[in-house]
Amino acid sequence: MQNTTSSKIYEAALEFHKMPKPGKIGLELTKRMVTKADLSLAYSPGVAAPCMEIHKSSEAAYKYTAKGNSVAVISNGTAVLGLGNIGALASKPVMEGKACLLKRFGDIDGVDIEVDESDVESFIKVVRAIGNTWGGINLEDIKAPECFLIEKVLIDLLDIPVFHDDQHGTAVVILAGLINALSLTKKQKKNVKIVINGAGSAAIASAFLLENFGFRKEKIIMCDSKGVIYKGRGELNEWKRYFALPEDITIRTLEDAAIGADILIGCSVGGAFSSSIVKNMASDPIIFALANPEPEIMPEDAYAVRDDIIIGTGRSDYVNQINNVLGFPYIFRGALDVRARRITTRMKLDAANAIAMVATQSPEYGKNHIVPSPFNGDMLRTVSYAVASAAISDGVARVVDFNLSTYNDHLNELGNMLKKKFDDR
Amino acid sequence: MQNTTSSKIYEAALEFHKMPKPGKIGLELTKRMVTKADLSLAYSPGVAAPCMEIHKSSEAAYKYTAKGNSVAVISNGTAVLGLGNIGALASKPVMEGKACLLKRFGDIDGVDIEVDESDVESFIKVVRAIGNTWGGINLEDIKAPECFLIEKVLIDLLDIPVFHDDQHGTAVVILAGLINALSLTKKQKKNVKIVINGAGSAAIASAFLLENFGFRKEKIIMCDSKGVIYKGRGELNEWKRYFALPEDITIRTLEDAAIGADILIGCSVGGAFSSSIVKNMASDPIIFALANPEPEIMPEDAYAVRDDIIIGTGRSDYVNQINNVLGFPYIFRGALDVRARRITTRMKLDAANAIAMVATQSPEYGKNHIVPSPFNGDMLRTVSYAVASAAISDGVARVVDFNLSTYNDHLNELGNMLKKKFDDR
Repeated sequence: MQNTTSSKIYEAALEFHKMPKPGKIGLELTKRMVTKADLSLAYSPGVAAPCMEIHKSSEAAYKYTAKGNSVAVISNGTAVLGLGNIGALASKPVMEGKACLLKRFGDIDGVDIEVDESDVESFIKVVRAIGNTWGGINLEDIKAPECFLIEKVLIDLLDIPVFHDDQHGTAVVILAGLINALSLTKKQKKNVKIVINGAGSAAIASAFLLENFGFRKEKIIMCDSKGVIYKGRGELNEWKRYFALPEDITIRTLEDAAIGADILIGCSVGGAFSSSIVKNMASDPIIFALANPEPEIMPEDAYAVRDDIIIGTGRSDYVNQINNVLGFPYIFRGALDVRARRITTRMKLDAANAIAMVATQSPEYGKNHIVPSPFNGDMLRTVSYAVASAAISDGVARVVDFNLSTYNDHLNELGNMLKKKFDDR
Repeated sequence: MQNTTSSKIYEAALEFHKMPKPGKIGLELTKRMVTKADLSLAYSPGVAAPCMEIHKSSEAAYKYTAKGNSVAVISNGTAVLGLGNIGALASKPVMEGKACLLKRFGDIDGVDIEVDESDVESFIKVVRAIGNTWGGINLEDIKAPECFLIEKVLIDLLDIPVFHDDQHGTAVVILAGLINALSLTKKQKKNVKIVINGAGSAAIASAFLLENFGFRKEKIIMCDSKGVIYKGRGELNEWKRYFALPEDITIRTLEDAAIGADILIGCSVGGAFSSSIVKNMASDPIIFALANPEPEIMPEDAYAVRDDIIIGTGRSDYVNQINNVLGFPYIFRGALDVRARRITTRMKLDAANAIAMVATQSPEYGKNHIVPSPFNGDMLRTVSYAVASAAISDGVARVVDFNLSTYNDHLNELGNMLKKKFDDR
């Protein structure tokens, strides 16, 4: 927030959040509440009926309450944006923002919950206790490595999708970008050398998803702030250990690791990629510099070194924006519609493939448009369909006899409704 | 749900909750989300600005997020309506319903949270951890006596109003009804003999509020399922003990206690008041038979005994409906507007007086209309004003320089907006 442009955005954002009334979200009533008769159905005495039905069978909550279309966006504020551990309440604007994006792009009723609890076990207890209120849970901005255990335990404890978006949302969109970047550069996933700089939630989850997609684990080098991660380097958490290089490897620095690399992914800090790193990569290199707001290298600085690159960042003011909004609203839409018990690896892989495919169908498709725009109207019907379909294949869908053949039309209508609703404002 | 009418309501309520989509509530976006520029303010990178402001000062959450206009309706489902301990999830329709009423009558953004935790300490930990997400907390349908400790501890732990509506909402509306009933029967609060049947959350809280209003504690007889509560009757919790009669009192039954009583309040079970109980009360007796759905005595059965009565029930199909909806939306509206730290006794007393006053201004005012209709448009500006004003007097308002002189106009406009919004549907 040093230069004038940033301070302009800062002030504009404060104004946006403040006026005409504070915040970005509110409650909408979806039923008529005009007469005494309406109230007697919505509240006492009529409301006893759905209560009794849910008491008989918990699945009835999907039939009579807003549960099935709702997702809680839950954070403890320990790793917010690039701001770090700013506390639960200070993360609220981000969580409200995420709730907005769920609605805007997936017609999902997001609810933000800020949990003032950084202890892992206590945080899990809180979320377990309230979790069944919603149809799904989007964990957000929780620091690594705590986030890995938190998500794993909650997935086991709850019978609804629990999805840490900083991990898997990022991983899905990175993979989508890579699928198209590989295709455009005619590289094979089995052969490419990949360097991931960063070993936090996004980096670790991306590495896992790339491996599941068919990239070769032995060709992935992961670096953290101390350099290349290798076995025996000192204390490594179990996730770093999984991706650690063999002990006898002699390379130690990101600089050395990136020599001859086909793919360089930054989930680290601004300015981490020097010109010489870019220069020493293989031909037609793919660079995702995803640190926010300042990327690991600015696109113009990378192009100053060589022009055979494909570069993506997290920024909306550059092409190839690798942004989570391309993933989570559609992933949750598909998961909710079939009442998935959880988000499986196949659902994530198929989401990435679907996002990549939507990009290829755009007239702009090419090295500067490897992923779709957030406003691409084909995303909902394509990505959510892929996710729902994968959930059924994986046996985690709880809706029996889900009609996939009409689901496409349904998503189309929903997309048109959203476009109309939010463009008409 | 035995007879045809009830089964009709049952089916109609299920249909209401199911169609055209499940539940009663959804998310509304209060800001524009049409262009990439909108998203860059609502979400990354702009959203960092309000986060940083809240990190600097937590009060900024009221300026930049939806916190200040939101109330969480939180239950663990241990005492739902007349249904008992049906569990957290099965209480969801009630909590969503309450969220609707907050919006419909107070323009407050309610959020329902079902906490799957009946242990007092664990429940408190959960609500403490998530509580600051909202501007206030409405506890609901939590069994007594646990509810008393839960509320007390949470009031101490959180710096926002925590209000157990089954206790205080009921107490406020009962007091409002009594104020007018006393005036109509020309009885004095210092002289009347009161019998309260029931010793759960509503009964205990009402007894406390009546005492605070000026009814004489020594003229209150409280009964539970075992009869009159007196000192030394066996194990009594501290709240029953407070209202227990002296040990040497010889009356033991509700029947005996009600002889010569001016006021008989039932927060108990259907059918608890026999004809002879009504017959033996003082002249011009006031009977509130509030068990739901079946009152302690049906109004027609009471009138069959004598016609000098004022009788109120919880039912919408009889006159004098003593219903919480007359209280909590307006109490929270006033409390939120001045950012009250908590709801004080004076705020509750003034709310009751304001509700009573609104009733007297209605052309229908009289023995069959001792409380206003839920749709009375004067409630918002009168009751919320009284509550905000009392919060300021009591020094619990956090908005400094709150302008009470324009608040009335503001509430008027809000009321008109709500009327237009919900009548136009």
